[in-house]
Amino acid sequence: MGHAPAPTAATYATDLGAIRAAQRRIEPFAHRTPVATNATLDAISGRRLWFKCELLQRTGSFKFRGATNAVRMLDDAGAARGVVTHSSGNHAQALALAARMRGIPAHVVMPSNSAEVKKAAVRGYGGRIIECEPTLEARESTAARVIAETGATMIPPYNHPDVMAGQGTIALELLDECPHLDAIVVPLGGGGLISGIAIAAKALKPSIRIIGAEPELAGDAAASKREGSIQPPMKPVTIADGLRAALGPLTFPVVRDLVDDIVLVSEADIAAHMRLAWERMKLTIEPSAAVGVAAACGDWIRARPELADVGVVLCGGNVDLSALPF
Amino acid sequence: MGHAPAPTAATYATDLGAIRAAQRRIEPFAHRTPVATNATLDAISGRRLWFKCELLQRTGSFKFRGATNAVRMLDDAGAARGVVTHSSGNHAQALALAARMRGIPAHVVMPSNSAEVKKAAVRGYGGRIIECEPTLEARESTAARVIAETGATMIPPYNHPDVMAGQGTIALELLDECPHLDAIVVPLGGGGLISGIAIAAKALKPSIRIIGAEPELAGDAAASKREGSIQPPMKPVTIADGLRAALGPLTFPVVRDLVDDIVLVSEADIAAHMRLAWERMKLTIEPSAAVGVAAACGDWIRARPELADVGVVLCGGNVDLSALPF
Repeated sequence: MGHAPAPTAATYATDLGAIRAAQRRIEPFAHRTPVATNATLDAISGRRLWFKCELLQRTGSFKFRGATNAVRMLDDAGAARGVVTHSSGNHAQALALAARMRGIPAHVVMPSNSAEVKKAAVRGYGGRIIECEPTLEARESTAARVIAETGATMIPPYNHPDVMAGQGTIALELLDECPHLDAIVVPLGGGGLISGIAIAAKALKPSIRIIGAEPELAGDAAASKREGSIQPPMKPVTIADGLRAALGPLTFPVVRDLVDDIVLVSEADIAAHMRLAWERMKLTIEPSAAVGVAAACGDWIRARPELADVGVVLCGGNVDLSALPF
Repeated sequence: MGHAPAPTAATYATDLGAIRAAQRRIEPFAHRTPVATNATLDAISGRRLWFKCELLQRTGSFKFRGATNAVRMLDDAGAARGVVTHSSGNHAQALALAARMRGIPAHVVMPSNSAEVKKAAVRGYGGRIIECEPTLEARESTAARVIAETGATMIPPYNHPDVMAGQGTIALELLDECPHLDAIVVPLGGGGLISGIAIAAKALKPSIRIIGAEPELAGDAAASKREGSIQPPMKPVTIADGLRAALGPLTFPVVRDLVDDIVLVSEADIAAHMRLAWERMKLTIEPSAAVGVAAACGDWIRARPELADVGVVLCGGNVDLSALPF
């Protein structure tokens, strides 16, 4: 728990300057999301919690920030050929809308067994779906074929400097509104969200603690930090499906150096805190966001009263109402 | 649809001055709730909708405003003897918390067959529950006994000047933030919410249209307006349980004179628009609030393009997650 080295422009894939530029770039398109408070959750947590409502972002998750920044970074000729991804979750929806708002095509490679609700969401934002066999190999080869045919640019969901910079804009907004924060709790999957936030927040306020919140059943980032090298993803069984991915080579160094702690959350706690947020905050957070709420309300943080004001990123709210975990 | 007479202090149970005083009185206790927008619902409605998020009010509904205003209007001696109500819904929770925040007892008379979740909510806010037989007569006689025993003051859920004034503060906030509104859509049950809003809004902006939204299966207010006299409540079957009450003698004249139209909403449309708000706005609105959303997105308003900017009061978000209508 010693002090992390100060990040420099040369150290990581993005930096405060790039994140500030991203903020100016996405400002006409992305919402500045509100910060919510809740007396009941404060009482449970024993401190003041400040919830950054990224579930109220366009397309229902923070992913729209990174996707928009990446799409807007393309030059006109490159942009005209479109963008492609083989993520099928929130990033796919975000990329589809970001592309539509620039008037360019978005090709989304999805396994043929993807939930119809996910396909409908991507189509609803104007994305073009290309189905493939449900294997990683098929997704990658299909994406490669799309790129060869169209010249589209691959925008991956997290392991990309412009995507990381876009997600980091959350920290700029949160610390602008709540400069007194002692810590920020961030759901941790592939690491794009937490790495952007950690780089921006520690550059602005070196004393702030960045706390990852990870499902026990997808605890590969905690293992990677412990081992000092990227560990493979675990079997994709957690209900927090947005957090199943493993770290990438660009996000891992940030998690290794700038994330102070990673709190592991059980499946039961994910479901219970999802329900708590729905009932008391009136916000339909998705399971991945509930991982952060659980970390901010659980035993780990209760043992740390010095963290008096804690930001919590409610990363998304895209839920299938016909399959609730409670 | 001619112009309504301008309200005067003598005409109705409350007026703009009392509502402004209520705003100052409740400001230290109630949230100033945010106004949300949503591109998907705008597209469906064919105009700009401005959602006043009273589901994010303390206790999860607008009722906290009226209850707090009424509780704070009591003199110290009267307040010390406590308050009583025999409403068992959102007003009971609101009154319990408003009383606790003044440090006085709240006695809530509830039928013995009330849902356990409602009893738990009232107890959670510090209310004292007195159970009685599930008839209106038993509720009234039990409340009378509590008043005789304790000297507590009855605070009814809507037919009360201070309650109406408290609810009217919503219009002050909404028109302060959105002075360009052409209309406000307000869920309509007993009429406390819409009468406070209508009095304040028409005093500030006489051209504004006030539109009630009422379940077809609880269309007694529309019938009352049509008949020119208070009609009894209908059989309490609508899922919008907050809107089952009939108008009272203080709220009826306001609905008669200042409410421009009442839109009736089917049960299927209530459930569909509740789900729409959950999925797209990420807000767990209750069925009563969905009645307003449905009215703001349906055929009636689509035939009125001149209403370009429309406020919609999301009146509450207290939902039993184990009994969803979709």
